[in-house]
Amino acid sequence: VSFREDGAASLDWVASYLERVRDLPVLAQVEPGELRERLPQAPPDRAEPFTDVLRDLDELLLPAATHWQSPRFFAYFANTGSEPGILAELLAAGLNQVGILWRTSPVLQELEELTLDWLAQLLGLPAGLHGHLEDTASTGTMTALAAARQAKPGARVVVCSEHAHSSVDKACRLLELETRAAPADEAFRLRPDALDLSGACAVVATIGTTSTSSIDPVPAIADACEREGVWLHVDAAYAGSAAVCPELRDAFAGWERADSIVVNPHKWLLTPMGCSAFWTRRPDDLRAVFSLVPEFLRVSEEVASLSEYSSALGRQFRALKLWAVLRCYGREGVQARIREAIRLAALFEGLVRDDPGWEVVAPRPFSLVCFRRDGTDEENEALLERVNASGEIFISHTKLNGRYVLRLAVGNARTTEDDVRFAWEVLRREAARAPA
Amino acid sequence: VSFREDGAASLDWVASYLERVRDLPVLAQVEPGELRERLPQAPPDRAEPFTDVLRDLDELLLPAATHWQSPRFFAYFANTGSEPGILAELLAAGLNQVGILWRTSPVLQELEELTLDWLAQLLGLPAGLHGHLEDTASTGTMTALAAARQAKPGARVVVCSEHAHSSVDKACRLLELETRAAPADEAFRLRPDALDLSGACAVVATIGTTSTSSIDPVPAIADACEREGVWLHVDAAYAGSAAVCPELRDAFAGWERADSIVVNPHKWLLTPMGCSAFWTRRPDDLRAVFSLVPEFLRVSEEVASLSEYSSALGRQFRALKLWAVLRCYGREGVQARIREAIRLAALFEGLVRDDPGWEVVAPRPFSLVCFRRDGTDEENEALLERVNASGEIFISHTKLNGRYVLRLAVGNARTTEDDVRFAWEVLRREAARAPA
Repeated sequence: VSFREDGAASLDWVASYLERVRDLPVLAQVEPGELRERLPQAPPDRAEPFTDVLRDLDELLLPAATHWQSPRFFAYFANTGSEPGILAELLAAGLNQVGILWRTSPVLQELEELTLDWLAQLLGLPAGLHGHLEDTASTGTMTALAAARQAKPGARVVVCSEHAHSSVDKACRLLELETRAAPADEAFRLRPDALDLSGACAVVATIGTTSTSSIDPVPAIADACEREGVWLHVDAAYAGSAAVCPELRDAFAGWERADSIVVNPHKWLLTPMGCSAFWTRRPDDLRAVFSLVPEFLRVSEEVASLSEYSSALGRQFRALKLWAVLRCYGREGVQARIREAIRLAALFEGLVRDDPGWEVVAPRPFSLVCFRRDGTDEENEALLERVNASGEIFISHTKLNGRYVLRLAVGNARTTEDDVRFAWEVLRREAARAPA
Repeated sequence: VSFREDGAASLDWVASYLERVRDLPVLAQVEPGELRERLPQAPPDRAEPFTDVLRDLDELLLPAATHWQSPRFFAYFANTGSEPGILAELLAAGLNQVGILWRTSPVLQELEELTLDWLAQLLGLPAGLHGHLEDTASTGTMTALAAARQAKPGARVVVCSEHAHSSVDKACRLLELETRAAPADEAFRLRPDALDLSGACAVVATIGTTSTSSIDPVPAIADACEREGVWLHVDAAYAGSAAVCPELRDAFAGWERADSIVVNPHKWLLTPMGCSAFWTRRPDDLRAVFSLVPEFLRVSEEVASLSEYSSALGRQFRALKLWAVLRCYGREGVQARIREAIRLAALFEGLVRDDPGWEVVAPRPFSLVCFRRDGTDEENEALLERVNASGEIFISHTKLNGRYVLRLAVGNARTTEDDVRFAWEVLRREAARAPA
């Protein structure tokens, strides 16, 4: 059997999967360990045909998948592996480029730089930022904080709102920095009047927090950071993609003054996983931490390698999928998807507001609705578990002011108005049922 | 145009690429900035068809690629994106799983755990190690050293040979640890009699160093680490895959005593980029650094997530490609490729040895040959640049005992005896030419 035949079967599998994914249970309906028990506990001695892999993918693996590609996935921040992005991953795997130095893959490095520049233009960021791609926003935040620590010796505190992402705490553990949580206001935004920058090397401000998508007041935070010489890192991992729409730019006021910014195209910009954009206006501070060229990598070209700006040495060809997405959607196509997600979230928010048994519990600047059913935390948690166990939709939760809160995030590009209305019906139906 | 049609064209592109890659110039024949200048400086407003992406890939991007898939790629450590691995990447992109918690993708987590267990069995590692995948060995080494630092408070020194990979230095910068280079013997192996573990939290021992593929004496180093309570990390990023062959296991003596081990299937185990295996027998020490479960991720299942063992939160579905490779080659198929690479390297070594104008300058335990032409460092460097500029083959270099040394690494699965003999002819031809 040839690569072409196995490839055609694989392609057909993906196409069929995308066609039927709406009808699959969104949350995997398996118990922990169930898949592992069903698979052979030892690798085969002899080669098996690729068609066996496809068969097992269908019969054994698929039931253990939670379907992020489902238009009825509303948990965390819903995302989309779009068709151009998927095919670009096939092409990238075929090319198998390794970015170490420029010469080991000029195309990887130059397309990454160009695509980050394209994306900066689309988002209205200033010209001249240095951009590169990381696997996740966690890595980008760690990269920023390492540069901030280096840039201000002795300052070992990182300030962020209590609603900042857990990756800030994780990076601080790794970098042996201390996090100082600034209090938030009633709309879950960092309170700049309560900002204590003593001993701080960095502030992480979030545009689109994970719990509620709240927006920290970046202009006031930037003022304070400039006054004190503190690195400002803006985490816009989820919401950043929305800056492609001019009418939403107010939410991003001040981010052009950040020392570093993270936006995840693999969240809300149609790109398959493993594509987190990082920009900085202080590339020299990144190089001070990460540039290290051993003898076996010294060559005649005088081109800085992207590995000098981050912790990994060998890079995957992550830019190809983002480049393909930006070309195959174009500015207008990306804008249309962002606007539609926000429209659908607003629709859902309206349904919740209009029902007296339910409550919207946080402002909704983008496509995430935070809400709860009247009743106890335990009842809301039981409701979430029943809804998710049904497999019809998948939502997640958070806690706000000590209360259990449901989160519905619109972000999958295949989600329609019908899917959102369906989600609301499932929630109402399960709320009406007494818990088992 | 549909996904199926664009997909068929993409698949055909990859198949044709693999068929013709031997005939393409191995090292990209472009100047820095050349590709970037040829591409549009701004993203399109309107959607473009995917066929335009494929056309530009062919006409603009491909000339700026250095062909790691070429059987005539002999630089660094040559690798292979094999056919099953490439197709598994297509499938993984189609599924677009995101590993955050177990429930967000049971298949991602359980297949990663199972596949790491399979690979441990293939390599003869002890049962019961905790395994997970990272993007690169740099991240794995950083993970290990962060755990080592945490496990031994106050000990801030990492000991390694002067031939250890630069990622050790880079991780130490990030973790604010100090590296102490132990001297190496005449075969470029760390000298255990010169091991000073005062103040050390970790030793990094390498099986298959980057410069020469030398093998540090792990048993003696493990003795010292056990005596002093120091974390032993074994970097077998390149050579580790060779442990699949029982006749090569002597080289790995003692690695079963390591606290952590890194092996890169994306180097010598036929897996496309972004697949670095990490095992530890001290998972609790990793969790002490990396486990951090915020409220929005607290759920009812009591299953530790793989994100609790490493710095990233959201994980890509990296295991699928490794699982597909292990199944479609089987133990015997993987062994055959390792043995063939070593046979071809031995053949090349013999050609060099038999020619009086050339010298082999390091022992060859695996598939890397270190050699030089009689003459000055400048002459050898000019020779390397001429050979690489020809596009016919691609090799790299290092410095040993202050001398410029050429490196030829066999590792691409498509490399034949003819390719190796061709490489030798190119080297001899260019050596015979006076430099320009």
